[in-house]
Amino acid sequence: MKRVCVAGPGVIGSLFAAYLARVTEVSALTRREEHARALNEDGLRVSGRGDFTSRLTAATSPDALPEPELVIVASKGGDVDRVAAQLAGHWPDAILMTVQNGIGADEIVARHGAWRLLASVTFMSGTRHADSHVEYVLDTATWIGPSRGTTADDARAVAALIESSGLKAQAFEDLRPAQWSKLIFNATVNTVAALTGLRHDPHFAALDDPRDLGHLVRDLMDEGKAVAAAAGVVLDEDPWEMNVLATRRGHRHAPSMLEDVQARRATEVDMITGSLVREAHRLGVPVPLHETMYRLIKAKEASWA
Amino acid sequence: MKRVCVAGPGVIGSLFAAYLARVTEVSALTRREEHARALNEDGLRVSGRGDFTSRLTAATSPDALPEPELVIVASKGGDVDRVAAQLAGHWPDAILMTVQNGIGADEIVARHGAWRLLASVTFMSGTRHADSHVEYVLDTATWIGPSRGTTADDARAVAALIESSGLKAQAFEDLRPAQWSKLIFNATVNTVAALTGLRHDPHFAALDDPRDLGHLVRDLMDEGKAVAAAAGVVLDEDPWEMNVLATRRGHRHAPSMLEDVQARRATEVDMITGSLVREAHRLGVPVPLHETMYRLIKAKEASWA
Repeated sequence: MKRVCVAGPGVIGSLFAAYLARVTEVSALTRREEHARALNEDGLRVSGRGDFTSRLTAATSPDALPEPELVIVASKGGDVDRVAAQLAGHWPDAILMTVQNGIGADEIVARHGAWRLLASVTFMSGTRHADSHVEYVLDTATWIGPSRGTTADDARAVAALIESSGLKAQAFEDLRPAQWSKLIFNATVNTVAALTGLRHDPHFAALDDPRDLGHLVRDLMDEGKAVAAAAGVVLDEDPWEMNVLATRRGHRHAPSMLEDVQARRATEVDMITGSLVREAHRLGVPVPLHETMYRLIKAKEASWA
Repeated sequence: MKRVCVAGPGVIGSLFAAYLARVTEVSALTRREEHARALNEDGLRVSGRGDFTSRLTAATSPDALPEPELVIVASKGGDVDRVAAQLAGHWPDAILMTVQNGIGADEIVARHGAWRLLASVTFMSGTRHADSHVEYVLDTATWIGPSRGTTADDARAVAALIESSGLKAQAFEDLRPAQWSKLIFNATVNTVAALTGLRHDPHFAALDDPRDLGHLVRDLMDEGKAVAAAAGVVLDEDPWEMNVLATRRGHRHAPSMLEDVQARRATEVDMITGSLVREAHRLGVPVPLHETMYRLIKAKEASWA
């Protein structure tokens, strides 16, 4: 693939843009003029697990960018609709790949054009220090699978390109088992952390006493597993086992929704818990506990609005 | 009643002690020596809706106090067991009246002696400025009903004494309908406020959108009403209507559990939601949403422990 555009370069998008620019021609579609200017003038610096600066072309309109073969839609979940609307009518031969938390980002993009689509879920993480500087923190993989009009071969081609740039990627025949495992895990761990102020620590797996938090975590995951089963998805990993293993590791990860709440930012609850609840309603599966978590997080956002 | 002892004079107990000392002889059983010393030396000052200072006798042991006819057990819920244990073997002819949030405080006291018991629930509020100074804020009533070995006549006698002192009180043939209405209201409004950071505002009654917080509030209250029904209690007031009315008033009350969480203090969730969940388990009524709120509040307490 000779040209890649990253649409919405936040942390994840910046990591893709900087690494891919080492092996192919990369452009970036930004929301803010200053962001595009900084990238055009300064390039994009990577620190942490990488240490280099990439050159790329950035603009706030697709008209000002070269036609790419692959577009990585990397904006936050709440911005996917806006970004896809901006791309409407452009680049009909490109493959668009979504990389948001939750499920359904590819369906949002699909409403804005007939592009071929890939879905992905990423486990890598970083910290954004400036428009032109991103720190690469966790070097875990991005998982890619086919969506509308694509096959596992397309997923493999993009995974190979990403791997050749120095990031980790893996292609799947069907992404949904992995995507749903991560969704159920995230919808549970993020909301519980955000409401209690706890990092992802051993409380999340505690079951000794009936009052322990682990019972709530397991009940939330059981609701999610019932939705996945109704959707015909056989989970890749059991979210409860992911939870038990993660809490046994020494590092107590601060889930992003906890960080959002502590900074009084809007959370991604609509993309995460919201997408699970919407699927549950579509399939007629009761999810009273996830609805509870959803309403509490939305009310928490309202408390500082 | 010629002598009253207030055991555990926090805000509510201090208000009772100061007002009752205007019409009868009052003693106070405190946990801390300095507290007893301050009361003995300075008396107990009331500001706010009152403006006077009362004299009373205080000590940290019942042996050092005159034998009362009425003991108001006014400690926080978590301290009732300790206070009752300290009173064990003392004052067998006295009536002991509990005044804690939730239900079951009289049963805890009953385990420590054969005293006659009254149960009560109070709606008055105040602010404690010092061991010897309490501000009287909300001049709402205390409701009193019979428990072990007492009748409505005993409740009426205590209510009349309290009324004669300048506070508001009302006696009931059966306190449970009022006590359960307040319990269901408190278990819901306190935990939702503490987890979201919202004061008791119109979000609590919002039902326009399926995602609105009012649905959670109503579902929590419906769980509570099912427990009350299984306990054979016909509620005095509908908690949902209490909620709608309260949120329509201009004043946005900060529930005490929200204040506790903001100050990183232990909450009263064990006495409030805890007592509702314990009754539900005893009666075999499912309360998954109250269990969720309970576990989230306990985990929140653990986050700063």
